[in-house]
Amino acid sequence: MRVSIIGATGYAGAELLRLLYEHPQADVVHITSESHTGEKISSIYPHLRGIYDEELESMKDIVRIGRDSDFVFIGLPHGHAMAAGKALEGEKTRIIDLGADYRFADTSVYEAWYKVKHTHKDAERVYGLAELNREAIRGAKIIGNAGCYTTASILALAPLAKSRLVDMTSIVVDAKSGVSGAGRSAKQANLLPELYDSFKAYGVATHRHTPEIEQAMADLSGEACILSFTPHLVPMSRGILATCYARLKEGVEPNMVDAAYETMYGEEYFVRLLGRGGYPATKAVRGSNFCDIGWHIDERTHRVVVLSAIDNLVKGAAGQAVQNFNIACGFDEKLGLDHIAVYP
Amino acid sequence: MRVSIIGATGYAGAELLRLLYEHPQADVVHITSESHTGEKISSIYPHLRGIYDEELESMKDIVRIGRDSDFVFIGLPHGHAMAAGKALEGEKTRIIDLGADYRFADTSVYEAWYKVKHTHKDAERVYGLAELNREAIRGAKIIGNAGCYTTASILALAPLAKSRLVDMTSIVVDAKSGVSGAGRSAKQANLLPELYDSFKAYGVATHRHTPEIEQAMADLSGEACILSFTPHLVPMSRGILATCYARLKEGVEPNMVDAAYETMYGEEYFVRLLGRGGYPATKAVRGSNFCDIGWHIDERTHRVVVLSAIDNLVKGAAGQAVQNFNIACGFDEKLGLDHIAVYP
Amino acid sequence: MRVSIIGATGYAGAELLRLLYEHPQADVVHITSESHTGEKISSIYPHLRGIYDEELESMKDIVRIGRDSDFVFIGLPHGHAMAAGKALEGEKTRIIDLGADYRFADTSVYEAWYKVKHTHKDAERVYGLAELNREAIRGAKIIGNAGCYTTASILALAPLAKSRLVDMTSIVVDAKSGVSGAGRSAKQANLLPELYDSFKAYGVATHRHTPEIEQAMADLSGEACILSFTPHLVPMSRGILATCYARLKEGVEPNMVDAAYETMYGEEYFVRLLGRGGYPATKAVRGSNFCDIGWHIDERTHRVVVLSAIDNLVKGAAGQAVQNFNIACGFDEKLGLDHIAVYP
Amino acid sequence: MRVSIIGATGYAGAELLRLLYEHPQADVVHITSESHTGEKISSIYPHLRGIYDEELESMKDIVRIGRDSDFVFIGLPHGHAMAAGKALEGEKTRIIDLGADYRFADTSVYEAWYKVKHTHKDAERVYGLAELNREAIRGAKIIGNAGCYTTASILALAPLAKSRLVDMTSIVVDAKSGVSGAGRSAKQANLLPELYDSFKAYGVATHRHTPEIEQAMADLSGEACILSFTPHLVPMSRGILATCYARLKEGVEPNMVDAAYETMYGEEYFVRLLGRGGYPATKAVRGSNFCDIGWHIDERTHRVVVLSAIDNLVKGAAGQAVQNFNIACGFDEKLGLDHIAVYP
Repeated sequence: MRVSIIGATGYAGAELLRLLYEHPQADVVHITSESHTGEKISSIYPHLRGIYDEELESMKDIVRIGRDSDFVFIGLPHGHAMAAGKALEGEKTRIIDLGADYRFADTSVYEAWYKVKHTHKDAERVYGLAELNREAIRGAKIIGNAGCYTTASILALAPLAKSRLVDMTSIVVDAKSGVSGAGRSAKQANLLPELYDSFKAYGVATHRHTPEIEQAMADLSGEACILSFTPHLVPMSRGILATCYARLKEGVEPNMVDAAYETMYGEEYFVRLLGRGGYPATKAVRGSNFCDIGWHIDERTHRVVVLSAIDNLVKGAAGQAVQNFNIACGFDEKLGLDHIAVYP
Repeated sequence: MRVSIIGATGYAGAELLRLLYEHPQADVVHITSESHTGEKISSIYPHLRGIYDEELESMKDIVRIGRDSDFVFIGLPHGHAMAAGKALEGEKTRIIDLGADYRFADTSVYEAWYKVKHTHKDAERVYGLAELNREAIRGAKIIGNAGCYTTASILALAPLAKSRLVDMTSIVVDAKSGVSGAGRSAKQANLLPELYDSFKAYGVATHRHTPEIEQAMADLSGEACILSFTPHLVPMSRGILATCYARLKEGVEPNMVDAAYETMYGEEYFVRLLGRGGYPATKAVRGSNFCDIGWHIDERTHRVVVLSAIDNLVKGAAGQAVQNFNIACGFDEKLGLDHIAVYP
Repeated sequence: MRVSIIGATGYAGAELLRLLYEHPQADVVHITSESHTGEKISSIYPHLRGIYDEELESMKDIVRIGRDSDFVFIGLPHGHAMAAGKALEGEKTRIIDLGADYRFADTSVYEAWYKVKHTHKDAERVYGLAELNREAIRGAKIIGNAGCYTTASILALAPLAKSRLVDMTSIVVDAKSGVSGAGRSAKQANLLPELYDSFKAYGVATHRHTPEIEQAMADLSGEACILSFTPHLVPMSRGILATCYARLKEGVEPNMVDAAYETMYGEEYFVRLLGRGGYPATKAVRGSNFCDIGWHIDERTHRVVVLSAIDNLVKGAAGQAVQNFNIACGFDEKLGLDHIAVYP
Repeated sequence: MRVSIIGATGYAGAELLRLLYEHPQADVVHITSESHTGEKISSIYPHLRGIYDEELESMKDIVRIGRDSDFVFIGLPHGHAMAAGKALEGEKTRIIDLGADYRFADTSVYEAWYKVKHTHKDAERVYGLAELNREAIRGAKIIGNAGCYTTASILALAPLAKSRLVDMTSIVVDAKSGVSGAGRSAKQANLLPELYDSFKAYGVATHRHTPEIEQAMADLSGEACILSFTPHLVPMSRGILATCYARLKEGVEPNMVDAAYETMYGEEYFVRLLGRGGYPATKAVRGSNFCDIGWHIDERTHRVVVLSAIDNLVKGAAGQAVQNFNIACGFDEKLGLDHIAVYP
């Protein structure tokens, strides 16, 4: 398959290149960057040197790029993918957007949280989280790749929601991310001396991944869901750990929780169940497409605490995109993704 | 005042030496270690070289050490301070225990969580968290210095509990600590390559600081409190951030929350209120005795989210001990503690 | 090819498993550990979970393991591989030793630096650094895989030595390594709080990789070489940077230096030349088998300064072993190794 | 003494505030910043909150600020302090410049390396490294505070130069710094994800601290000195380690080296000699004004290897400035500086 990357110089774009290089069925034909047009990607990312020395193009002629490509991966800031998606509407190329523009069934939710008008509301799109939505992804024209925090959070909570084991108003998601999640643009706040040997929260009660998690929870449980989501910055490059709390419904026994996870993920390759009492660590998934999940029953508080770990740039972005690509192409889902984490 | 440190080779003991060195009213007369008896403390801690080259003694003759000392600071693992406390019962020396042995009013709670029989139940003791308990500390014989996670958590939640603004059954504390909290003993799990560039939880639903927070919450609110507490390891040396969630009672307005914090901490030097919307960072308190607190009202979920940051070895251990010492001696509380954080 | 790993629970052993998993021509048949016999490797290394759940065996029956295997990789501490090598002497299996036992042509050098008697002096062995020794590796029975610091140092200096551009008595190698190089055994000195946010040297003038570099320098230049080598610990998990200094011989021009590098490495896939003025970074090779090299001419001091970066566990250990394995098997050298670094 | 800080929002300026806060004889009267005029310094540096909430002024009226101040500390980029120095020429205020403008006796060296015309060549100035230059500092009008790398390097090498134990053409200084040395301005290259878990060199053969070290070496030894200096970035916030190599002159015995260090630094409080065989670590000096030094004799290469560790923001900048201030005022040199490092 011929694939192109629009917005290839962000961390997710570079990670896509890393993964696609080893993909036996993907051939990267165009990579674009408006700020680095004409430069070699390897001059911007030294790890690509000697492997991927192609020049970055402009996305101005997006239609030509689309016609050249079976799939277009979009790694643009939110609000910009819609324009690209619209421009490619009549073309045969299919789209995997790593941003938020195509993630919401109800675009008014998108507009409320992202403070931007949605200009491609009638797009034929599906939510790109394979473990929840595999069938729909198969034939989709536009795939709205799930977000990083949301992937970790939704995968952690999905079995509880689907099996209706928890009070949907009781959910708290306390999530922690490595700093690559904040992107590669130069900001004083993200300098190493500012964040190293430090830990802090941000975006309390306002982070845009909140409604995305709520949408999935509502879909799975059939109940409305409003939850608390708090992101934090960990002094490290990669990785997300989500710590999720929910009150168990009366009568729910520990083995019912175990069964919910086994039923939903027993056959999933990229979700590894560490079982009840398990402690995922981001290092154990670093560089890989795995999501490790463990859960704990707190008898004293009648809460279940679920822990999930992903690499935010792989299962939380580029790896998920490749997984969706594989599904959309009818390939084995593991193609180009079956890497063991780089540990330690 | 003549002071001694029993168990001086742990991180908290070394931090006590750092702080006491600059304390104008404290003179360290004995430092002990059973595993390093006869060695110079500066051979074990290179930063003390040239400043504090004294030899470590054994604590075998604790009574003599006690007689030499106006105050004895104890930095032993839980279960061991009780024996020392008992041995010093008839002596004039006063005790500040940095461990858990003297933290609980109800020793059966201690026994249940620490799996050890309490052998000094009738000790005349007070809970050593200055901002809550200043009066009692003043005259106390034995001060059970508050724990590290507990200090961050209790200071974050105390105004809400005291002003009865939140549902006491709704509390979730998601806490994150630097690795110095795990001590200095050689464990494979705490090697740098294992924890660096990684993040994980541990002790879900079972961490021993849980009942200590619950005890304070109950004392402050007059209601029983059972809460969820989850500790995590951050790949850094020092610092704790506690993210605390609680459901606001009906009718509680944001300004009532603000007022609760202002009322309780307006005059406290070591608690710095970053206000509603504030984001404390552990780096801003590193090496200092401050506890920075910010809070957020989530109108969608009717929860308040409180963030607090401390240095686990200062306000969470040695600094708190010196603060208690100052109170117990009738000194200015800031004596030897008025240091700005080392940033960045 | 059927391969086994003797001593699979060190970091290098685990890294071998990561790489061999994706190798299309290698099938791991035995993995051993004396301290974890009977345990699953995935219980010791969480990143292997679901991928490599095999049980660790004892190496007691090394001959049987050898008979089962076309190749035996040895990841034992120095001194122990010799015994295994001797036990397998009559067998058809070939050996790649990741330790030091088979690295020295002159075993008296080994004995002097490693303070251990060499018990397999007549072993038919070759030094396993592909870029220097490819032909010899092809048919070797026993390959003494080059060390981590040595690989970075030798690859940096080899063109200068081979082209005789520098004074062989003037060489200084100042090398820096991530902490995984210190192994996985529990030591207080390697705890995260001890090394994080810190930097220090160790082993000045005594590190055992020194004679290994000197041996290669002498082989390449035809002159005796005694050099200064200083290792340092960087607060990170993986990666080595070697900064190498040498005095240029009179009359040596910058373009002669450039030519030496181009000539020696122009066709080498795993050596990436960043050119004169280039700055390799360990992050750009993390998880990959590349060695990035840049060099600088200091006209003022008539020195050349060469910088080289590798991942100590890949090109410095397991990746190099796989590269040697590929050569010894007559495979494409890149088989199972053509991975892009995990960046950032 | 009344002191002001011109350019207070850099890391060195903020560190000056931290140290001066505890100085019993210094009263900060003005702090300036052109980019943050009118803002509170505590809104820019959260660790200063509640302690130092003063507003930043403009330096436009530098003469008025100078008249208000017994001492003016200047924390401006090189080239800007000269203008301030000139403007204050007729005033009684004394100046401690943390930048490079007043460090060179020969301003043509400054002009050659800094590519800027020196506009205050006739300034009455001294080089501000207390351990070398104490007497001259006492009465100086303008003190050119020594640089960070240079302090570590010069203190490491000074006894060897002064006692003429080494070949002055043989010196190599391989230095490593935490990222705070790169300043607080927003640069992509210094983002945490770019530098974390990575190590690299920069400025080979061109770093501007080189001639400053050479100037001191020449002054001490009476011989011209041209040396190799290579700086590196360590993934940490603070700290410098310098690894210095020099060839011992014939006949120099190890005890002569020891004696040189003892003679020069035996009475120096802020230089701590770890002795022959000692290994300084940056963590052991973090936040303190100490310079820890150890040295090693390599009999094989006839080189001495000297290791020195400082906190780049303290002994390498703000602490040194306060030390110079103390000397210039006739105070005890330790005033406001006698802090133990924050370890771990």
